[in-house]
Amino acid sequence: MSHISLQCVNCRASFPANMSRLLCDKCQAPLDVFYESPGGKSDAGGESAPRMPKPTHEGSVMVTLGEGDTPVVELTKVGKLLGSERLYGKLEFLNPTGSFKDRGSATLISVALELGVAEIVEDSSGNAGASIAAYTARAGIKAHIFAPAGAPSNKIRQIRVYGAEAHLVEGLREAATQAAVEFYRKNDLLYASHNLSPYFVEGTKTFAYEVFEQFADGLPAHIVMPVGNGSLFIGAWKGFQELKAGGHIGGIPTLHCIQAQAVRPIVDAFQGRQWSAEDAQPTVAGGISVANPPRLSQVVAIVRASGGQALAVSESEILRWHGLLSAQEGIYAEPTSAAAFAGVDALIRQGHIGSGDLTLVPITGFGLKDTTEY
Amino acid sequence: MSHISLQCVNCRASFPANMSRLLCDKCQAPLDVFYESPGGKSDAGGESAPRMPKPTHEGSVMVTLGEGDTPVVELTKVGKLLGSERLYGKLEFLNPTGSFKDRGSATLISVALELGVAEIVEDSSGNAGASIAAYTARAGIKAHIFAPAGAPSNKIRQIRVYGAEAHLVEGLREAATQAAVEFYRKNDLLYASHNLSPYFVEGTKTFAYEVFEQFADGLPAHIVMPVGNGSLFIGAWKGFQELKAGGHIGGIPTLHCIQAQAVRPIVDAFQGRQWSAEDAQPTVAGGISVANPPRLSQVVAIVRASGGQALAVSESEILRWHGLLSAQEGIYAEPTSAAAFAGVDALIRQGHIGSGDLTLVPITGFGLKDTTEY
Repeated sequence: MSHISLQCVNCRASFPANMSRLLCDKCQAPLDVFYESPGGKSDAGGESAPRMPKPTHEGSVMVTLGEGDTPVVELTKVGKLLGSERLYGKLEFLNPTGSFKDRGSATLISVALELGVAEIVEDSSGNAGASIAAYTARAGIKAHIFAPAGAPSNKIRQIRVYGAEAHLVEGLREAATQAAVEFYRKNDLLYASHNLSPYFVEGTKTFAYEVFEQFADGLPAHIVMPVGNGSLFIGAWKGFQELKAGGHIGGIPTLHCIQAQAVRPIVDAFQGRQWSAEDAQPTVAGGISVANPPRLSQVVAIVRASGGQALAVSESEILRWHGLLSAQEGIYAEPTSAAAFAGVDALIRQGHIGSGDLTLVPITGFGLKDTTEY
Repeated sequence: MSHISLQCVNCRASFPANMSRLLCDKCQAPLDVFYESPGGKSDAGGESAPRMPKPTHEGSVMVTLGEGDTPVVELTKVGKLLGSERLYGKLEFLNPTGSFKDRGSATLISVALELGVAEIVEDSSGNAGASIAAYTARAGIKAHIFAPAGAPSNKIRQIRVYGAEAHLVEGLREAATQAAVEFYRKNDLLYASHNLSPYFVEGTKTFAYEVFEQFADGLPAHIVMPVGNGSLFIGAWKGFQELKAGGHIGGIPTLHCIQAQAVRPIVDAFQGRQWSAEDAQPTVAGGISVANPPRLSQVVAIVRASGGQALAVSESEILRWHGLLSAQEGIYAEPTSAAAFAGVDALIRQGHIGSGDLTLVPITGFGLKDTTEY
């Protein structure tokens, strides 16, 4: 893939693009896709529609299930309860497997298909695993998905329905990662970790391009996201950066990162507090229960660069907003997605978001995926 | 609602538009929305985009969750297994509550809101109930949903999550209808039956307008649908009829109706065989398990008018195509949706669909809604 290279997010060291390199040789930080000739610029100097640079080559077969182009709806009633007059939700759960992860999987698996990969290994708490399983099924690639044995049964069933081999691992989320790493090394397979692979976050940047189109009269002032590993958070930032570099937008929305108090490595890092993976507690927000996110520093840097906040919310607040979202707005989200609304509540009360500020929340996963009774 | 009236689908008798009239006074057949001045025509005589007539008035608040605009994807591998070179799926399960029913609910509940309705009664095997529950939640209307006690637990949970009151009724699907009728009469409430209400099928016609846009180079020759009561089937026909009347299309795709052998009142009526509701057997295709569909004659007439077929498929064929759809294409549908692919198989083998014919299947409901192990 001659038009791209991989760049360390920390020391900026550059490496030739391939799929097996996931970390920087020099500092062991994750990598991002780097375009040799900057994209996002249009011929007419910002007037025409932006061209989004992609890691695949022109003419390649793209693996797609129609992901993206998710609807944006106004949340009048939840907005009123929160004290926001201009609150919108982007229904990311209306992606083909029921979560935003499909944006990343489509790009990751398209690159894998282009390179002739036949078999991959991935680990996931559920949503990314189901997503990768669907896209590999479509591409004809065999997938091994390592998931915590305690993941919601609907998610594990979904992984298997797509024909992937689900390897259930007892213990914390990290035990599934460790088992996946042992397995891919032992069997000499490709480790297509959605947390590490630069192609996955490259795929999620489509979110920003859609927000640009859907808010043609003016971008949201704030975007508030639930963050586990931060793949949507980082992808959105990348997309907005490209749009800015291309002269299509003047400024970038303020990006706020919300975690559960039970698992808050990024929030603690942002606030300068000590965090240890052993501090992690069980949380209803399983999709952001990532005790040791490999892209932590990258997320913290983006929060700072965009002028946002990182804050943690309680289990009871997550469940409260989860219930209000469905009963008031008719939106059935995963509890994970509701964490962002608990976050908006705190951000408004703390004065970081004004009542008249246009605020957008991606609603990341379908409630049907996690029918645990809390 | 002065621009519309209600017209009997059988004797064409006309009635003033309201929400409580569900059947013709004279012959007890269901009603359709009738526009006083025919819509669908564009000023430029077919050149510009079609204008879809709606039962709501201009300036009314529409109750929307971003339904519709579902993606169309090519099904190369399943097509090859079926012997079709041009097979496409329209992912109707990527509607806000996970099924195509949201098209109907959006229109039905928008009309209810316009008329100031505060409380409604509905009966459903699950998907329509969840959909009505979501849209009433958003509109601030109280909903009583009567469902069979044996409906999948994920669907019943979903109804309750939106804050609707779920009334579970033991026995066949029809027992839920009977209980709903008794309840609305006793409590003098509006019966917003999605099977009977003319506004529900009026909402599903958006499907046809989207197919027209998405297949701008040429409409599908065949559309194959799983049919229970036929709300999507009838709505699609209405939409295509409007597009034809407006001069936007020359012909209408052939519409084929697929039912489970276990519950096949429409197929038997089409084929001139006797059917009794007592003949109904349990089926994995719960979404089309309607033993006594009130719009049966209307569906049969559409199948004939479009030159299509109505045929029934076995449980094992439904489950076989359900598995192939997920493992080969990465599409996790309800078993109900897979019945249509078993139908395509039979239609190709019987020579009704040619291998080169452009064929479209709406994939009606999300697999996450029914996680029963078969």
